Amino acid sequence: MSDLPKHVDIHEEGPREGFQIEPGPISTADKIRLIEALAETGLHHIQACSFVNTRLVPGWADAEAVVAGFKAKPGVDYTALWFNSNGLDRALAFKDKLTLSGSIALTASEGFTKKNLNRTHAENLEAMRKQTALHLAKGVPVKRIGIMAAFGCNYQGDISPAQVVKTVEDGMTIAREAGADITLISLADTMGWAIPPRIERVIGEVRARFPKQTIALHLHDTRGIAVANAHAALKMGVAQFDTTVGGLGGCPFAGQKGAAGNICTEELVLLAHEMGIETGVDLDKLIEVGRLAESIVGHQLPSELIHAGSLNAFRKKAA
Amino acid sequence: MSDLPKHVDIHEEGPREGFQIEPGPISTADKIRLIEALAETGLHHIQACSFVNTRLVPGWADAEAVVAGFKAKPGVDYTALWFNSNGLDRALAFKDKLTLSGSIALTASEGFTKKNLNRTHAENLEAMRKQTALHLAKGVPVKRIGIMAAFGCNYQGDISPAQVVKTVEDGMTIAREAGADITLISLADTMGWAIPPRIERVIGEVRARFPKQTIALHLHDTRGIAVANAHAALKMGVAQFDTTVGGLGGCPFAGQKGAAGNICTEELVLLAHEMGIETGVDLDKLIEVGRLAESIVGHQLPSELIHAGSLNAFRKKAA
Repeated sequence: MSDLPKHVDIHEEGPREGFQIEPGPISTADKIRLIEALAETGLHHIQACSFVNTRLVPGWADAEAVVAGFKAKPGVDYTALWFNSNGLDRALAFKDKLTLSGSIALTASEGFTKKNLNRTHAENLEAMRKQTALHLAKGVPVKRIGIMAAFGCNYQGDISPAQVVKTVEDGMTIAREAGADITLISLADTMGWAIPPRIERVIGEVRARFPKQTIALHLHDTRGIAVANAHAALKMGVAQFDTTVGGLGGCPFAGQKGAAGNICTEELVLLAHEMGIETGVDLDKLIEVGRLAESIVGHQLPSELIHAGSLNAFRKKAA
Repeated sequence: MSDLPKHVDIHEEGPREGFQIEPGPISTADKIRLIEALAETGLHHIQACSFVNTRLVPGWADAEAVVAGFKAKPGVDYTALWFNSNGLDRALAFKDKLTLSGSIALTASEGFTKKNLNRTHAENLEAMRKQTALHLAKGVPVKRIGIMAAFGCNYQGDISPAQVVKTVEDGMTIAREAGADITLISLADTMGWAIPPRIERVIGEVRARFPKQTIALHLHDTRGIAVANAHAALKMGVAQFDTTVGGLGGCPFAGQKGAAGNICTEELVLLAHEMGIETGVDLDKLIEVGRLAESIVGHQLPSELIHAGSLNAFRKKAA
């Protein structure tokens, strides 16, 4: 009867998303502390850093020191983000500690591709063709297609589900030509345009066209609707989400200064647990890590739950 | 096919909820400015103040000055809150400007009734009997039953739907004996325990038992799930919500210092409009009022939307 998943895979991106956007310098030691604390909560996927241009993103100038410094917990996948050949080489230096996997990163909005990458969609496809070949040549698998602005765009407005499907098809063509086997399609609400009915339509159409691939969601809470979107997706059986502890991160895009970051890990965990869906995460431990994240960045984070406490903590007191 | 309402009635409680809890003194002039600005957005129900003990709630010591001071807009219902005979008399002094209506206020959790009112449920029923009679004797109709902690309680833990139905029945008995005609049942998630499946179960059971009454929801965003709860309720045809602009307010209950207030008016309006449900509200004007509220209280409010801007504003720019 129910499409609810039994288990949800949570990909924690707090360290990477959060520390790239925080204005204050965050020490390498604090970054390591957060990564190690996250691994103790039961999370199995932690994106630890970005290997990006250190001039453009000074917050990640210490990516190597962070990866070298944290103590890896067995059973936890640590991942990283990169956008070019130089970043890939930096990541490869840690191929024994990080789980390296490439992504064909496309955008459903040509307007955003132009603004964000200064490329046309066609030029971006060409860049992704080269990048996919480069990854495979270096022995790094490419298993994921990521679609940004899959639910709407500040520069282009509404995005149709058909446009999202077409963009995934473009990625599939690149993968097929390169001999890459795509197992995951990640749909990102990059600028906070999703609402539940759009989540249902886009996921429905993408799944109908690509029934073999797992669908993951990357939700931003830019307009406060992320948790409703996650709920709608859970009801459709979506079982993989990117999240950030405490709601770390933000939205660097035009007109959105001060806008919220990703959906909070702990709020998704609360929702899942209360719906009877397993996450493997100890929510009370995770809330403590959210409070640690808040103390590290030195300002209030968007997460309501880290300020209110879990329901189970109150259930125990009441019992 | 769809249970979605065509129109949602929004009862704005920002002035009352917000200014009762803000630590800094808010000037009478600022309270009036916010009330008048809200009336220009298309909202038709605005709770303007609390006639409460000024020693216990110093933030509302100027309730009379606020009500006397704002210019009422034709077509807008201005309401107030009170808890006892003295408060009712203070409200009655403004019966030409305020829409006065009594409420049978009960709590589904005996633990909360004890903590919040220092009464047993039976003692509270007796108090409500007297208060209902008093209202009717003074010519103020009693049309509403309000149930606090209808989805769970920090002091008692989970609350069963059957307990909520029983509490409404207690209120109906009081109303019947007093000759009051109840048209509205308001269910409050006072301490942020609701999640969508609980919303569906409680509303389903209350509606099955009381099919003639309108059901309204009063949601707090204590744990970040309020918008998912509102979405679940909209899908069940719930068409009346209490909200606060900017997410003004907070949760004064134990263990929840720093916890979020009510669901944000503008986020509910965004969700409704994007689902094709009318609210009568101009969202861009409302976002401006949220920013005004933020400047009045002097600190960041929980609303994400007032920081990000509406989708329509970006659609216009993109067109």
